[in-house]
Amino acid sequence: MIKAGIIGATGYTGAELVRMLSAHPDVELTVITSRQYEGSPISDVYPSLSGRCELVCEAFDLETFCDRVDIAFTALPHKIPMDIVPGLLKGGVRVVDLSADFRFRNVADYEAWYQPHTASELSEKAVYGLCELYRDQIRDARVVGNPGCYPTTILLALVPLLKAGIIRAEGIISDSKSGVSGAGRGLSLGSHFCEANESFKAYKVDGHRHRPEIEEVLSAAHGDAVEITFIPHLIPATRGMLSTIYCTLVEGKTEDDARKVLAETYGASPFVRLREKGRVPDILHVQHTNFCDIGLASDARGGRLVVMSAIDNLLKGASGQAVQNMNIMAGLDERAGLL
Amino acid sequence: MIKAGIIGATGYTGAELVRMLSAHPDVELTVITSRQYEGSPISDVYPSLSGRCELVCEAFDLETFCDRVDIAFTALPHKIPMDIVPGLLKGGVRVVDLSADFRFRNVADYEAWYQPHTASELSEKAVYGLCELYRDQIRDARVVGNPGCYPTTILLALVPLLKAGIIRAEGIISDSKSGVSGAGRGLSLGSHFCEANESFKAYKVDGHRHRPEIEEVLSAAHGDAVEITFIPHLIPATRGMLSTIYCTLVEGKTEDDARKVLAETYGASPFVRLREKGRVPDILHVQHTNFCDIGLASDARGGRLVVMSAIDNLLKGASGQAVQNMNIMAGLDERAGLL
Amino acid sequence: MIKAGIIGATGYTGAELVRMLSAHPDVELTVITSRQYEGSPISDVYPSLSGRCELVCEAFDLETFCDRVDIAFTALPHKIPMDIVPGLLKGGVRVVDLSADFRFRNVADYEAWYQPHTASELSEKAVYGLCELYRDQIRDARVVGNPGCYPTTILLALVPLLKAGIIRAEGIISDSKSGVSGAGRGLSLGSHFCEANESFKAYKVDGHRHRPEIEEVLSAAHGDAVEITFIPHLIPATRGMLSTIYCTLVEGKTEDDARKVLAETYGASPFVRLREKGRVPDILHVQHTNFCDIGLASDARGGRLVVMSAIDNLLKGASGQAVQNMNIMAGLDERAGLL
Amino acid sequence: MIKAGIIGATGYTGAELVRMLSAHPDVELTVITSRQYEGSPISDVYPSLSGRCELVCEAFDLETFCDRVDIAFTALPHKIPMDIVPGLLKGGVRVVDLSADFRFRNVADYEAWYQPHTASELSEKAVYGLCELYRDQIRDARVVGNPGCYPTTILLALVPLLKAGIIRAEGIISDSKSGVSGAGRGLSLGSHFCEANESFKAYKVDGHRHRPEIEEVLSAAHGDAVEITFIPHLIPATRGMLSTIYCTLVEGKTEDDARKVLAETYGASPFVRLREKGRVPDILHVQHTNFCDIGLASDARGGRLVVMSAIDNLLKGASGQAVQNMNIMAGLDERAGLL
Repeated sequence: MIKAGIIGATGYTGAELVRMLSAHPDVELTVITSRQYEGSPISDVYPSLSGRCELVCEAFDLETFCDRVDIAFTALPHKIPMDIVPGLLKGGVRVVDLSADFRFRNVADYEAWYQPHTASELSEKAVYGLCELYRDQIRDARVVGNPGCYPTTILLALVPLLKAGIIRAEGIISDSKSGVSGAGRGLSLGSHFCEANESFKAYKVDGHRHRPEIEEVLSAAHGDAVEITFIPHLIPATRGMLSTIYCTLVEGKTEDDARKVLAETYGASPFVRLREKGRVPDILHVQHTNFCDIGLASDARGGRLVVMSAIDNLLKGASGQAVQNMNIMAGLDERAGLL
Repeated sequence: MIKAGIIGATGYTGAELVRMLSAHPDVELTVITSRQYEGSPISDVYPSLSGRCELVCEAFDLETFCDRVDIAFTALPHKIPMDIVPGLLKGGVRVVDLSADFRFRNVADYEAWYQPHTASELSEKAVYGLCELYRDQIRDARVVGNPGCYPTTILLALVPLLKAGIIRAEGIISDSKSGVSGAGRGLSLGSHFCEANESFKAYKVDGHRHRPEIEEVLSAAHGDAVEITFIPHLIPATRGMLSTIYCTLVEGKTEDDARKVLAETYGASPFVRLREKGRVPDILHVQHTNFCDIGLASDARGGRLVVMSAIDNLLKGASGQAVQNMNIMAGLDERAGLL
Repeated sequence: MIKAGIIGATGYTGAELVRMLSAHPDVELTVITSRQYEGSPISDVYPSLSGRCELVCEAFDLETFCDRVDIAFTALPHKIPMDIVPGLLKGGVRVVDLSADFRFRNVADYEAWYQPHTASELSEKAVYGLCELYRDQIRDARVVGNPGCYPTTILLALVPLLKAGIIRAEGIISDSKSGVSGAGRGLSLGSHFCEANESFKAYKVDGHRHRPEIEEVLSAAHGDAVEITFIPHLIPATRGMLSTIYCTLVEGKTEDDARKVLAETYGASPFVRLREKGRVPDILHVQHTNFCDIGLASDARGGRLVVMSAIDNLLKGASGQAVQNMNIMAGLDERAGLL
Repeated sequence: MIKAGIIGATGYTGAELVRMLSAHPDVELTVITSRQYEGSPISDVYPSLSGRCELVCEAFDLETFCDRVDIAFTALPHKIPMDIVPGLLKGGVRVVDLSADFRFRNVADYEAWYQPHTASELSEKAVYGLCELYRDQIRDARVVGNPGCYPTTILLALVPLLKAGIIRAEGIISDSKSGVSGAGRGLSLGSHFCEANESFKAYKVDGHRHRPEIEEVLSAAHGDAVEITFIPHLIPATRGMLSTIYCTLVEGKTEDDARKVLAETYGASPFVRLREKGRVPDILHVQHTNFCDIGLASDARGGRLVVMSAIDNLLKGASGQAVQNMNIMAGLDERAGLL
């Protein structure tokens, strides 16, 4: 049994981790921490967890934490993990970090969009936890930077197509849509039921910090700088994320070529489902699952390829992928505890 | 043209007042005030109002307010109106108050559930603004205490039946349900989209302060103390309220008798719609309207009468009824600006 | 491994069974049937199931079905199971029937609300599959009549209280609310998104056929006829069901007594969670789970006890409880495949 | 008073027309017709209309209809209007047609996407009822082809920018999203609450017939053929539509230039609201109104302009614009009955 601990267990992604790890056949969840809810049973904070997890939230204490844990999930606001993770590693604990702190190999990008990085060497050596594309590196990683939700939808869809020369690197547009849980459990007018219900709108149209994360990985895949247009929107639903991505086919390439490349890339990956021609991904089909559904359409007239990619933002877009990363790191069946 | 002002224009009920009064054929909306948004155009706070109202939120100043206004709507948290309303009256302004401060004739009830009343004499002389049942007193009122939303659903349904001796005063239960906007625009975990969406639950099961308001009016109608059981619930919808009320028929009385009494009571009231036998009220049918829909069912076995009553909590349950009160006070067609 | 088959796999309850049984550690799902979708992979009908179940819907053929199955789930419209189940039993297959056909010991009640029963002897010998209350009989049952969703909420809450003499048998009212999936996948104006969204209303106010099912079990528990008032409503949510039940406390009994009885009754039952004093059940907390959450409140003035009971109507109210029944019948851990 | 009639009053757009025309200060609604609901009061079909309109649905009879009506609204499935409208014109009735039958000047486009046109001469002479852009022609039109909902969002946003040379005609992409009411009141699995709620997906990705309508008008504005990529999606909300449109700025042009052109174009148009820099349109702000809100963003790196355009699909996207067209045709204040 792998001993797992969660630092920051009371946000939405933390609670999903508690739920999954409590029921995971190969894991013993030994510690959960929370600053805000120290001393409270997690089932008081999330009544849905009662009867499933009897743990009480603790304050984080590095030493006792490391004694009880083989692998740590840090589900904390950006900036806190870079302070904590070095200590965890020294304590012999491997880490899946759900913040942005270890997602960037090029720390300058991180610093341009977030803040100065105090553990930049570690970040440069961390592995980007997009399971299907970095599986080999994840296996031996000490620190995995779990990808952002939007990047997960876009990168799973585009990296194979770019690498195979199916689509052009120029002019990519992602019109992306997220359920409200993507904004977390904190209070804000935008998350007020009466403002989000029956609403639909774009947000952060002047720049969302998932864009540099996407561009770093696309650029690496392409071997040259890739710039995209990325506009996120808010869906009046709790969970789910869909990116509708507009690309230009390389001269002579077709939707069928794209389909073939994706089928080959993901043939052995249990959590990527390629939709048949004429079928489209729907967030309804991936909610409460770790799947990423990808569909394709094309417009014969303009050489345009449209790639649609759907996930549950809290699972494949966060905690589900984190568990999948743990499974890979621990040599377990990638699907363990996730189906 | 009647000159109207709104004190506290930036909550949900205030914004509904702005919308209706701006389009009202007999009203000029001259002043809106807001502590929080002083200096902001109301259309910045509520973009839906842009192109409809060009007013800028002001700080409240009694003297200049009274100079520009014939009738004031106070859409403020409980406790503030009792401080402000006496001054408005002295300034020659009539008032429709949307808080609880002037709903109670028996100030002791108010004080038991809210706080000490600093204008109790005024409260005892104010008129309860349930338009269909207090129309005559409202006409000449200086201060109208606009009813709570739950009380509106329950009292419109029950007062005529109690008075006519159709139902017994004992054992009345109201299982009531409200859209989330009833909790206002303030931030709380309960109003967070992800907590309210796909949710349904009771709240304040140990006592909601609309109960004494309901009981005071029912008791007056009955001529003796009436006690009810009242359990409110939250609907995962923005607007709308339904009370399902369980009563006992007086021996020998029937659903048809109840229907006849309600039909007679509300025959000349444009905003109460009695549903035919076999039809039920639905919040969908009253949303964005000032109507109250009432339906009836009965269970032959137990002498049980079930009365269902639906409104839009922000309109007939608050701002719509406030405008209806103003129409009555000003001698206008009761429907003006409301259809 | 238990070999399981589903007859009628393409309704909402059938699809939930496919999902759970495909992932169940002790079950091999060997056959799924569908009249409408014969020949289609289930993942074409429910894309959410792709990557989880590769079965193709078959036409139902008694002989080949019985050869491949130890236990059958019949997820069919009322009336069809009574034709099919006798053959299954002869073929050596045990049955969990999700329709109403085997829920009634008193077949006359069934016939008054449904239709003539063509396998009435079998119905009289079937076991009512309310797991927590009929566990011992379920263990050896050949046919289990899986309870209706509303009855599950009401009976789990009331049977122990009635038996223990905490509440009176007279005057019980259940104001119940269900998510839209309770109406099934068939098309009707009432299930149209634009009619159900932002809507809330009662339905079947003149009599819902879950009432006789509830009354039969309550009467058996009480040892004398019990009649209730039962008004169902529709929640604008996909899943979840809450009953708010109004009872009269027996003289001298209290909310605490009720709490103690329920705690004792369900102490060893993993799927009933008693909420602490002051906490209420929320359908949000039971969605996508097999839990039933029960909460209590009381109104000191009237000797009134309010019992609230929440489930996921498709799981504890249908397919989850069906799997729980199978676990009990097969001697497995009651929780297997359900957490 | 203008006498108005509605042919096909019981769909969602018909019902909105009934609601608005009943309350319109300059209109008498004299006839409503419905094949399906002949003989029923409209308030039986839409209980929300009770107390607002007492009309009974009639069968359509050309002669008696023309006697009682100055202007007709045809809210019928495509293909029926082209049979009926010629007779209405002969009967001296002016027509606002809400179907696609009279939207195309180039009938070949219509025939490629719909069916053979049996009144093609009439279609070529009809006026496209996009009020803000065709106001002068609408004034004297005998037949107005009321625009599709998606075209309304896209054309109001793009036509002025194209004409003024701000954006290039190549490579335009509209990622559009509609509430479920856009699919009408007919029953289909896609409109089932449980399939549309908490769902988000693209549809008709291989070609939606609003595309040729959009392209015809854009091409006319540009003076040369314009082709766009258009992908519609379904929002889990009843009403509202948002198009996020990706354009390329003409070399040297900026977001500010675009803003200025739109401000000038719509300065005198009461129903187009240009959002300030940094603000985005939200369907919540236009629901239940006839407004179209337009916002702009740009991505300095790529010369990309993003134009966002939001309407209520049933109002500015259908019935509201139809009333606005009638107002223009009748020489009324454009806003009459619409604020």
